[in-house]
Amino acid sequence: MLVGATSEPGKLGYGIVENLAGFPGAVHFVGREAGVLLGRPVYARVESVPDPVDLAVLLVPAALVPDSLEACGRRGIRAVVIASGGFRETGDNGAALEAACLRVAARHEIRFLGPNCIGIIDTHVPLDTTFLRPSGAPEGPIAFLSHSGALVAAVIDWSRGRGFGFSRLVSLGNQADLTETDLLPAVAADPFTRVVTMYLEGIGDGRRFVAAAERAGCPIIVHKAGRSTAGRHAAKSHTGALAGDEVAFDAAFRRAGVLRASSTEEMLDWARTLAWAPPMRGRTVAVVTNAGGPGVVAADAVERHGLALADLADRTAAGLREFLPSVAGFENPVDMLASASPVDYSRAVEAVLRDDNVDAVMVIVAPPPRYVAKDVADAIVAVDRTKPVVVVTMGGPAVAEAREVLRSAHVPDYGFPFEAAGALGALYRRSTFAPHTPCASVRDPAVVVMPTGTGWLEQSAALKLVDGIGIPSVPTLAAITAEEAVRAAGSLGYPVAVKAEVPDLVHKSRAGGVLLGLDDSAEVERGFHTLSERHSDLRGVVVQPMAHGDVEIVVGVVRDEQFGPLVMFGTGGVDVERERDVAFALAPVTCEDMEYLLATTFAGRELSETAAAAVSEAIVRLGMLAAEHPEVAEVEINPLVVQPHGVLAVDARARIDSGPGSIA
Amino acid sequence: MLVGATSEPGKLGYGIVENLAGFPGAVHFVGREAGVLLGRPVYARVESVPDPVDLAVLLVPAALVPDSLEACGRRGIRAVVIASGGFRETGDNGAALEAACLRVAARHEIRFLGPNCIGIIDTHVPLDTTFLRPSGAPEGPIAFLSHSGALVAAVIDWSRGRGFGFSRLVSLGNQADLTETDLLPAVAADPFTRVVTMYLEGIGDGRRFVAAAERAGCPIIVHKAGRSTAGRHAAKSHTGALAGDEVAFDAAFRRAGVLRASSTEEMLDWARTLAWAPPMRGRTVAVVTNAGGPGVVAADAVERHGLALADLADRTAAGLREFLPSVAGFENPVDMLASASPVDYSRAVEAVLRDDNVDAVMVIVAPPPRYVAKDVADAIVAVDRTKPVVVVTMGGPAVAEAREVLRSAHVPDYGFPFEAAGALGALYRRSTFAPHTPCASVRDPAVVVMPTGTGWLEQSAALKLVDGIGIPSVPTLAAITAEEAVRAAGSLGYPVAVKAEVPDLVHKSRAGGVLLGLDDSAEVERGFHTLSERHSDLRGVVVQPMAHGDVEIVVGVVRDEQFGPLVMFGTGGVDVERERDVAFALAPVTCEDMEYLLATTFAGRELSETAAAAVSEAIVRLGMLAAEHPEVAEVEINPLVVQPHGVLAVDARARIDSGPGSIA
Repeated sequence: MLVGATSEPGKLGYGIVENLAGFPGAVHFVGREAGVLLGRPVYARVESVPDPVDLAVLLVPAALVPDSLEACGRRGIRAVVIASGGFRETGDNGAALEAACLRVAARHEIRFLGPNCIGIIDTHVPLDTTFLRPSGAPEGPIAFLSHSGALVAAVIDWSRGRGFGFSRLVSLGNQADLTETDLLPAVAADPFTRVVTMYLEGIGDGRRFVAAAERAGCPIIVHKAGRSTAGRHAAKSHTGALAGDEVAFDAAFRRAGVLRASSTEEMLDWARTLAWAPPMRGRTVAVVTNAGGPGVVAADAVERHGLALADLADRTAAGLREFLPSVAGFENPVDMLASASPVDYSRAVEAVLRDDNVDAVMVIVAPPPRYVAKDVADAIVAVDRTKPVVVVTMGGPAVAEAREVLRSAHVPDYGFPFEAAGALGALYRRSTFAPHTPCASVRDPAVVVMPTGTGWLEQSAALKLVDGIGIPSVPTLAAITAEEAVRAAGSLGYPVAVKAEVPDLVHKSRAGGVLLGLDDSAEVERGFHTLSERHSDLRGVVVQPMAHGDVEIVVGVVRDEQFGPLVMFGTGGVDVERERDVAFALAPVTCEDMEYLLATTFAGRELSETAAAAVSEAIVRLGMLAAEHPEVAEVEINPLVVQPHGVLAVDARARIDSGPGSIA
Repeated sequence: MLVGATSEPGKLGYGIVENLAGFPGAVHFVGREAGVLLGRPVYARVESVPDPVDLAVLLVPAALVPDSLEACGRRGIRAVVIASGGFRETGDNGAALEAACLRVAARHEIRFLGPNCIGIIDTHVPLDTTFLRPSGAPEGPIAFLSHSGALVAAVIDWSRGRGFGFSRLVSLGNQADLTETDLLPAVAADPFTRVVTMYLEGIGDGRRFVAAAERAGCPIIVHKAGRSTAGRHAAKSHTGALAGDEVAFDAAFRRAGVLRASSTEEMLDWARTLAWAPPMRGRTVAVVTNAGGPGVVAADAVERHGLALADLADRTAAGLREFLPSVAGFENPVDMLASASPVDYSRAVEAVLRDDNVDAVMVIVAPPPRYVAKDVADAIVAVDRTKPVVVVTMGGPAVAEAREVLRSAHVPDYGFPFEAAGALGALYRRSTFAPHTPCASVRDPAVVVMPTGTGWLEQSAALKLVDGIGIPSVPTLAAITAEEAVRAAGSLGYPVAVKAEVPDLVHKSRAGGVLLGLDDSAEVERGFHTLSERHSDLRGVVVQPMAHGDVEIVVGVVRDEQFGPLVMFGTGGVDVERERDVAFALAPVTCEDMEYLLATTFAGRELSETAAAAVSEAIVRLGMLAAEHPEVAEVEINPLVVQPHGVLAVDARARIDSGPGSIA
């Protein structure tokens, strides 16, 4: 049912009328002008429409939408597309109208798409609720969910004549009710969908998205643009300073196996290979070419996308020698020379596909001077493609027919090797993704006594919190006078470290707030006075015995507005922000996250096995703390010193946010 | 004149015959079959051809090429294209034939292109010596020099129907004689060439290329693929280990203002904007769009390519408000909404072009629901483009006509914002490039006494070399017994450092070869024995007074096979390879190089003005040493300690290579 139907050809409402005409079921129109549209009566009111109605599309002025929605609700309609604009995107009045729609929808248990969206297309039903010209979209295995309606229009138009198509397209509009996360499961479960692509400008509920993506059962490729507009908490820790918006997206996408493309074109390039090719079991690629230069470019591109040139087995080279000229290249890339015939292509591709050292094949077809490119494509298509095969058809008109042949046979083709290698790289990453498993390295989950209140804890309290979750920390005594400091030092035993307690001082060492290796009471007393002079806002000091270790690392927790708690791990010390040797993962961490944290940082790679186990346990505990206690806003242990038999937290900062009334 | 003409349509020789038919001057054919080709007589011998001949194209079997060349030489022909294959690329026999060609050419002062190339195309003469079908290439402002003939063919074919074209295309083949560097000046000087693009797999004489590129007078874009196959000297210094092949290319391209594209497509994408748009004076871009999503994508893309969104002046926003809907977006991106008309486009583009805060404009045309995209293109084309304007035409058939309009008017268009922003980024880098100026910070060039011999110098000799070129080094005494070490320490004054002299020990500190802060003769004696025990191949020790400084940096010299000496600068200490905070420049360094070295490293950014001056002087001196003394193969000063009034070299390594007989 379309509410807002019109017979005026220039209007968007007429566009929707025309596109709905393709729907094989019953379509009803509601409009201000009574009469007949496409042979169907136009009703004046929603209430007058006969039959059960499954879906209503509203295209009436924004101010009238809540009433139309109310009428739909009374009529028992539970699914609505609000195509109208004029809501939150236009200011406060519009936002109020949007809120009114949500209230009506809640009352009638309506779920709606939009407002301010161009609707949905299902190419297989077919159903097209948009006003786009021409109607529908090329059919195919790719679903597209988009935060931008214009991109839906552009992507459909761009795909025409390019040999791929879509199962469903959804324009999400303002997402007042239904979001990308709500739509994802249904779109992924569509039997015609093999890959879900998404254009996102942000994600409302990050964790729910991650869970939905993990369960989706088909590859998801996201082009994410835009920055979080929510003001970021001014960073008061290295962890906070290093955790840009993108860090959380990357951690979440890694967890869920979502592939992140850097442009719309790349997203669609990858989608074709992911939809059409079998999984890629390893990272090796054989290149088969009829020209040397493109082979060199292909070899470069393969390595740039994290893949490797396969070492061909001797038997493969021997097989190739049977039919290729003796001056051909028999290593990888296999350079068949410009004289390569269609039969040479199919035999060479078959030969490298049989090679156990080969996980995928990139075939390059530079315009063959003595043959027709289309015949080469026919030969390639006839090969039994037991592993992924992508083809680079270099040129324009000379290879146009070859492209048609390849696309009809669902062999992904690209114009240059760079894009083809990128698609194989994405296929490899997706093929080797497995759902993460919880990290179970913690033996005795500690019971945490959470500090109350809001704001940054004092050092001694932060270290106590850390100690409380089972991360051993160096004994720490607070003192607010020189005398207390001397007494504390005496009870701990010399030498000691004396550290200034100054609110909001992040770079404490650099600011001269840390005195190390004080050997007797006189030095401690002098030290206390030095710190008093240096820091006018000194609240006191903490005294610790000197702690030594081989390596200093940093572990931390920060909270992202969209994805919640993240842990950070990396090289610690005073130069954390300069070294940038850190990695992030969603909290709580999984075994795969832990492997990633340790493998992608120098700090992780340099740990001994014993040390790695101790560090992992600390990270897991910190991750659990963050996941279970939302009031833990930010934690940083720096340095966490790695000692022969475990780790020791020497310095810690923690910010608690117990809700409204936060001071930080 | 074509040698190897034939009337058999299937043969490459016939292809060349047909393509030469388009040449407006006299064309002569030499072939085995007497007769007439395209109305011209076929001569049996080169000697029989009448008239002065400017250019000969040889397509005869490889074994006959030296004789044909000889005949050309006797005939007075000085320019030859050897299209035949079967030379160095096929093995030793072919290489011998190639050498024979070079001897003949030298005797007759012939310069030749190839062998194993597909020849040249000049679209304006027109001249086409290739066998490619169809003849010629689309005309336009882009020159293309290629190490791969197949890429020439592919690029021509790919460009058909895409609205840009070429001035000249050259396939360089085996480059036995003429290289990319030889061809560059002529191609760049062609009045029809506005941009030179190059596909390179390596560069023979790097410095000559840099000089030619600097003088070319038009933008040069290179897609460089492939790796140096020459065996690399096993790295015995941090500088050597960090200097990958690509470092030299990047340093050379930076010096010469050459833009480096990562794929063939990117190279051609950039070329269109560089050929058609005026210079871009700053890095700010205004985005004008009729759709929000693509605007967000554009904003992202602009930042990803090193550009910035312009802050529009208040007056500009006020001007836009005069004709755009009140709910449009008046900040940058300017979102005119889907209702934007062709007139809105031209007025908005004019408004942002007038804004002094705007250096370039990206216009986005998502298929307009109420207007025809072609009319929008007509409106954009009519605007006086005083600054660079690129257009993103999103879609396929719906914007095809718009693309035609834009291309005819030489307005660069792209399918998505990512590529458009990339092209503007390249334009900006090229527009702001200025030829480098020699760095003149050195007050008194030192006269260097070069050590003789070959191999790694001992530490004391290396420090002496460094000291000799005017970089102050810490006093250093060599000792081969404990007694000598104690005596040296006594003469230098305590505390001292004692360092092992062990051949080929790069990570000396890590290997326990450095003892610091020895306070008396007993400690020095004990230290000597400790080093003897740790290093079975100890040649002796050096003794130095302890040197302290705020910052430890590393400076070094390494030699690249293609580009000669490079200097390295960055964060020093034991962790140089881990920190990777280093940058490279060609030696001798220019002022612009120096700025780059200091600006792109933490080490450089953290130096005070005084310290930067002292460090710069050391780098300049080192660069001069490397440039003037080719026998200096590798130097590394690490650490170079920055002190309040200058720098002090504390440790140095140097390798001398006086030519044949090198031991390293």
